[in-house]
Amino acid sequence: MTDVLPADLITTAPDEVAIRQALVQVALGRKPADIAIRVGRLLDVHTRRWLDDQEIVISNRRIAWVGAAGTYPGEVRMREARPHLAAVPGFGEVHKHIESSHLTPEYEAALVLPRGNTWTCEASHEMSNVDGPNNLAFWLAARQNGSPLKIFPLPGSAVPPTGYERGGGYFGLDEQRAFLKTNLMVAGLDEVMDWPSVSDPASPSYDRLWGMIQATFEQRGVVEGHGAGLREPSVVNAFAAAGLASDHEVRTPEEMFRKLAAGVFVEIRPVSIPTLVPALLEAGLADFSQIALTTDDRSASDTLRLGASDYNVRLAIEAGVAPEVAIQCVTINPARHMRLTPWVGSISPGRFADFVLLSDVATLQIAEVWADGKQVSQGTTYTGPLPKIDWPDWARRTINVGRDLTAQDFEIPAASGRATMNAAVLRPFHWTDDFLTETLAVEDGLVQRDSDRCITKFAIVDRYSGKAQVARMFWRGCGPRTPDTALACSVAHDQHNIWVVGSSDAAMAQAVNAIAAQQGGWALVREGEVAATVRYEIGGLMSARTAEELDAEMQDLYAAAEEVDWMHEPTYVDGWPEGFPERLIFATLTCAPWRWVLVAPHPERAPEGFVNVQTGKTHPIVW
Amino acid sequence: MTDVLPADLITTAPDEVAIRQALVQVALGRKPADIAIRVGRLLDVHTRRWLDDQEIVISNRRIAWVGAAGTYPGEVRMREARPHLAAVPGFGEVHKHIESSHLTPEYEAALVLPRGNTWTCEASHEMSNVDGPNNLAFWLAARQNGSPLKIFPLPGSAVPPTGYERGGGYFGLDEQRAFLKTNLMVAGLDEVMDWPSVSDPASPSYDRLWGMIQATFEQRGVVEGHGAGLREPSVVNAFAAAGLASDHEVRTPEEMFRKLAAGVFVEIRPVSIPTLVPALLEAGLADFSQIALTTDDRSASDTLRLGASDYNVRLAIEAGVAPEVAIQCVTINPARHMRLTPWVGSISPGRFADFVLLSDVATLQIAEVWADGKQVSQGTTYTGPLPKIDWPDWARRTINVGRDLTAQDFEIPAASGRATMNAAVLRPFHWTDDFLTETLAVEDGLVQRDSDRCITKFAIVDRYSGKAQVARMFWRGCGPRTPDTALACSVAHDQHNIWVVGSSDAAMAQAVNAIAAQQGGWALVREGEVAATVRYEIGGLMSARTAEELDAEMQDLYAAAEEVDWMHEPTYVDGWPEGFPERLIFATLTCAPWRWVLVAPHPERAPEGFVNVQTGKTHPIVW
Repeated sequence: MTDVLPADLITTAPDEVAIRQALVQVALGRKPADIAIRVGRLLDVHTRRWLDDQEIVISNRRIAWVGAAGTYPGEVRMREARPHLAAVPGFGEVHKHIESSHLTPEYEAALVLPRGNTWTCEASHEMSNVDGPNNLAFWLAARQNGSPLKIFPLPGSAVPPTGYERGGGYFGLDEQRAFLKTNLMVAGLDEVMDWPSVSDPASPSYDRLWGMIQATFEQRGVVEGHGAGLREPSVVNAFAAAGLASDHEVRTPEEMFRKLAAGVFVEIRPVSIPTLVPALLEAGLADFSQIALTTDDRSASDTLRLGASDYNVRLAIEAGVAPEVAIQCVTINPARHMRLTPWVGSISPGRFADFVLLSDVATLQIAEVWADGKQVSQGTTYTGPLPKIDWPDWARRTINVGRDLTAQDFEIPAASGRATMNAAVLRPFHWTDDFLTETLAVEDGLVQRDSDRCITKFAIVDRYSGKAQVARMFWRGCGPRTPDTALACSVAHDQHNIWVVGSSDAAMAQAVNAIAAQQGGWALVREGEVAATVRYEIGGLMSARTAEELDAEMQDLYAAAEEVDWMHEPTYVDGWPEGFPERLIFATLTCAPWRWVLVAPHPERAPEGFVNVQTGKTHPIVW
Repeated sequence: MTDVLPADLITTAPDEVAIRQALVQVALGRKPADIAIRVGRLLDVHTRRWLDDQEIVISNRRIAWVGAAGTYPGEVRMREARPHLAAVPGFGEVHKHIESSHLTPEYEAALVLPRGNTWTCEASHEMSNVDGPNNLAFWLAARQNGSPLKIFPLPGSAVPPTGYERGGGYFGLDEQRAFLKTNLMVAGLDEVMDWPSVSDPASPSYDRLWGMIQATFEQRGVVEGHGAGLREPSVVNAFAAAGLASDHEVRTPEEMFRKLAAGVFVEIRPVSIPTLVPALLEAGLADFSQIALTTDDRSASDTLRLGASDYNVRLAIEAGVAPEVAIQCVTINPARHMRLTPWVGSISPGRFADFVLLSDVATLQIAEVWADGKQVSQGTTYTGPLPKIDWPDWARRTINVGRDLTAQDFEIPAASGRATMNAAVLRPFHWTDDFLTETLAVEDGLVQRDSDRCITKFAIVDRYSGKAQVARMFWRGCGPRTPDTALACSVAHDQHNIWVVGSSDAAMAQAVNAIAAQQGGWALVREGEVAATVRYEIGGLMSARTAEELDAEMQDLYAAAEEVDWMHEPTYVDGWPEGFPERLIFATLTCAPWRWVLVAPHPERAPEGFVNVQTGKTHPIVW
């Protein structure tokens, strides 16, 4: 037993020993505690029972003792009392892409902690695809510098997302093995999204993916799944048989019960809460232990407006579930699933002293949040430490197009002598087996857009190789109708090249060049002028500033976009609203259920970038 | 993907990949399955719901597919139908010492499988103390040879049990690290029993124990606890803060709720079911996810008479809990706690095809048990594979006293010229702070027994060093009153030296010599003759024969012991019955709450073997 205790920021086995050895002495009253906080009642999430008039005794960042107020036998340096408040464990996100808030982790912490979220299993394939080797360094930097949010990074399985893409990261067996050995914050393997590659031995990603699964089993980590659209009984069975332990993409009650019965841990997202929670209640479910609530993706702007994990819990309560059950779904249930119970998930000795104090349980009114044994919020105002991180170049210089692009980079030449050409056309979220085929006019030897038919150009610009590689084709039902207008963004799930959609080739080039200049984010070119930009200077995905500052910039972009005439054509019902096409950032996904997609040019496997990721087939973009 | 599949007996990460890759193809119906068995209903333990008319589709030893009967899309080589039976997952023992059945693992399997028990977390400190280096080899041998019982060995933390004992094993950080790396059957660290050493930095075992805890955290294993008598709020808090994740020693409702609230997984044993289960129901508990039922120790004779895990479930049902909840307490709950859900705990794809077919759920009537995808029992008759194992010498030659003992080895000399001496006296299960002190007569320079006061001699014979070392002292309330009679056994928790209690020194020597000759077991010397022996020829703890054969030998011992006049004095209420003192095998424990104990002589720390294991103090046995 040593007297110099570890900082207790990054969890390692030797540190655990030193920390717990000291905690034992505090629990026994042999060494003084730092703080005791008395609460009106406390939720034992292990048994779903309220315990009245409890005291939480804290040593450094951990809970040393919990019990009836006034009975702790040791000395306490400071005492606090909140007799009118109810304590519940800090909320955990079992599956979240912090990148989607577009805030770096220290600012994410400041945003979500006051909303109850004290720990997050970071689904890290966005930043992993930008910079694989520095993945852990990136996710642990905020915590290492004292941020109270516990981020448990799960290395992305989709690095690269498919065998047809290449970028800043490559994760296979060796990489995953090394990650899991680094420290105990790494809980497992993030969502295995590429179902065609898991289930098809002929897929070019087959060995890489199963290698990551092997490394995760090897070190007793958790293999997370992603089962979007995988609903057929046999596919659900195969998914579970593969060892994929969870799914956050469940949308229908039938699918949910099938996956639960197959032993898949179901992580319900807000979009599905109003459908799935009533179905659970209607079925008379008495055991929710296999269920969690989680965010997956939410922008900082939406979190400011709606909330973080607290919003998910409130939605579930509104859908009819008891508040205590809903709280279990963001505390002990996900902690158990992720094998993180020694650290988070309950207000118990040995765990981090992270808890939420509620002024009203039924409506989940959060009065204060405590993390690392200290109060870190008052209402929705963050009052905890916000470290200033000097992000290195590997995080700040990640956009490497190679040169300024010009209109020519986006041209689509016709075959010689042709007045029209056939074109392969996609829509955002076009999940059917075949692409659309349209006949388009040729002018000056180039195939033309047709705004009457809602057909415009969409391109993916490789931002990693520095070779100014551009894949382009015609898309339908998205993008500006306004002339000389283009919208581009460096958030392009999951490879995070730059996507751009525009009514002229010159505007497309201009938008991409603006993004490259600011090292990531959004750029809107309107009638030949840069009308708005939003800066994501870290990894081209996030910004190191407060949610409020970033939101203000986003609001300016939205305002500028209001003046653009946006094409629209419904694709899938709840995913593709009219107006500013913000969801194009997700329209470049390549996981199931996507089939035909546009990726950056891949020299051997998809020279034009147009490929069916389920079959590996390519096709000319015009013919 | 390979066509040659692993044997799927010992679980490793590379094998998991090959096995699951193949299972995916079977689940999808692309490759034929081996067997499909249709059942009347099936319990989804993840949600505690019955699913009617289900089919379990099996490939090799695993489940590939589960769903509505008749809807599996692939080919099946063989079909079975049990429309009148209800399928529930194979039962798991979350904490069991197979050594206590006194059967080697292959015979244990044949005994418990027909009683529903398909997987066991082996609490291995008995055999570990006999032969530490070969611990895993021993526990995996039966499975490696095709036995369908899945044994998950947890290396014992009590190796040696205290810093005052030495034997055949020493487990510290390095050993535990190596065990966990060997394969995925090793789930964690077995019950940390030596609470004084966990909580007292001055204890000689402190660093060894925390080293094992460190190694277990390091590889994401589970640290099991043992909290006998640890009931005070602060001690319960300290126990949880130390990272000890479970307790199977809970006896009172108050203690149970305190431990549950502290985040300790509660493993209820049969002895406590009638007290604890009603208390849970009375408290209106709606969430049993933190609770398991388990056996800990049960002899083969008792299992033949009562049952195995099925007995525990029936006891819980009789105590008032719903059968489905009781079944969760031996399936999904312990599997989740032990992080073994990929393999056991539910009837789901990817898991071993181990399930119990019930003819009546309410009374848990077991019709058949299936394991490794095959029927292994009909009623209580085992019909599965029973491999013949040629146990090597390290398992067969473990009793090394060094020479035949004589009466002189058990003499207790008086100080010169004294007519009486003071003697330190213990009783079985004597847990108070002080030993008893009695004045005893001296004859021929030797301190004498006093059967009028129920005082006899008890000794521990070192069976490891080959130096014929004997620790002896006076004990009260146990042992034979019949002259020249002694009872000895090589099961002496947890160090498993040989204990012997007798009415003459010569009979004591004779009993020990009989045990040494047969390499372990029981020996009863009655009036100068060996009246009965029971052979435990493997590790001195177990026998490689059927439960029925061993039981017959035990019954002969009991019959011979009927003719002995056994002293008796109550110690602790439910632990020390009158008659044949079989429970002396547990009276040599040294974990909490034991204080003064007799161990084999330890040259530096306890030369006479008499030591207070909580303080390290020694005391002369007579003065």
